[in-house]
Amino acid sequence: MGARTYRTVLIGSGNVASFLKEHIAGPFEVMQVKGRSLTQSSPKGKGLKSLPLGEAFEEAALYIIAVSDRAIPSVAEELKDVKGLVVHTAGSVPMDILKQSRRGVLYPLQTISKARKLPASKVPFYIEASREEDLGLLRLLAESMGSKATPMTSEKRRYLHLAAVFCCNFVNRLYGITADLLAEHDIPFSSMLPLIHETADKVEELTPHQAQTGPAVRWDEEVMAQQMTLLDDEQRELYQLLSKSIHDDKLRFDKD
Amino acid sequence: MGARTYRTVLIGSGNVASFLKEHIAGPFEVMQVKGRSLTQSSPKGKGLKSLPLGEAFEEAALYIIAVSDRAIPSVAEELKDVKGLVVHTAGSVPMDILKQSRRGVLYPLQTISKARKLPASKVPFYIEASREEDLGLLRLLAESMGSKATPMTSEKRRYLHLAAVFCCNFVNRLYGITADLLAEHDIPFSSMLPLIHETADKVEELTPHQAQTGPAVRWDEEVMAQQMTLLDDEQRELYQLLSKSIHDDKLRFDKD
Repeated sequence: MGARTYRTVLIGSGNVASFLKEHIAGPFEVMQVKGRSLTQSSPKGKGLKSLPLGEAFEEAALYIIAVSDRAIPSVAEELKDVKGLVVHTAGSVPMDILKQSRRGVLYPLQTISKARKLPASKVPFYIEASREEDLGLLRLLAESMGSKATPMTSEKRRYLHLAAVFCCNFVNRLYGITADLLAEHDIPFSSMLPLIHETADKVEELTPHQAQTGPAVRWDEEVMAQQMTLLDDEQRELYQLLSKSIHDDKLRFDKD
Repeated sequence: MGARTYRTVLIGSGNVASFLKEHIAGPFEVMQVKGRSLTQSSPKGKGLKSLPLGEAFEEAALYIIAVSDRAIPSVAEELKDVKGLVVHTAGSVPMDILKQSRRGVLYPLQTISKARKLPASKVPFYIEASREEDLGLLRLLAESMGSKATPMTSEKRRYLHLAAVFCCNFVNRLYGITADLLAEHDIPFSSMLPLIHETADKVEELTPHQAQTGPAVRWDEEVMAQQMTLLDDEQRELYQLLSKSIHDDKLRFDKD
């Protein structure tokens, strides 16, 4: 008796699509379609007909739309008649943007870049599906990669994604400003790595509020004024706003 | 033949002073003075006379002033006649605020809180001294704790401290906003830890510019506009400014 396999069509060529292509395993057999339709993406002479996605792969068990948020509706439209489960991978796009009766979401809560290898065990998935049994399929997909899946509604996932923007995308931008400031004074960025790692490790044990240190939490106006003279306009505006946010947070807690 | 020991007076009771008290070892024998003078800090009846620091400990080899930046000059004044090396531990205060002929700086580049134990190996020290041989003493102090010391001028150390404010103090505040957003929607902060750690690990391999992901680097205005509706005024202002900073950084690189 052959084990059940799930033919999987993966649409997209960005960071998330590349990650999934690399890691999808086990009972899932993946074929990546790099453009938004089979025609666009197929190299000439490969024998694939110019067909809309839905027709070309009408028998797949799972269609994963891993394209930019804006492009999801048009790809979903091409798949409107398929019988398999259709999911997207976006944090802030509700599941119901998909009109298929079997629809879902497979959202990887991680910063994924093609230039960096990442084991799937470090990529937790947040999943949602219109049918209970399809949640099971998405869970199996995550677990067969060696990852974990947690069900979450579209409404809650919006906040998960928003929180991720603050603690990843914006944090990384602060690393970038750090790198700029150091480079101007010939200090290697690697000097900061023990501090960067301890700052991250610290919030496993303490709340960010308890973990806060630095001139702004002490409201050391002399140091702050002096540091601001060393910054360009954009950096200074950020310095002021973040210092004020640290101070406001302290006042809120002190009052409680 | 007895090994040489260095009597060390540590002045202060904050995070850095507590850390140093805990870790100073080897040939250094430390006595902590918690107030700004011996009188202030000594419990009654301990038999210590009401003496200025300098007189009480005139024979110490090393005096470490680990008090708030503002209080350094007045503590240093009390130590004006000592013969030992006098150092402070502040990132943004120049060495020459000290008027002693043997003066220096012992700056720990780390976020240190009393509530969290931290091995000294994770705390790199940046050192400076008016005399070459005193640099050696500070290096010995760091190494006897199991740490490392790197010489750095006051001028450069200002930028080191400023960079640390961005990649530690401000990053931690973004973790705090993350925690606030999640708590409002009953999502555990621990959900974010794989992302927080990968964001930190990623910049060991890629530059922050290469590592950047998220709506702002893609300039996905629809997601950004939607996310801003979920924030309070202070959070929204930060969101706009950091998104703009990510975008500006991308444009600068694309142009180069």
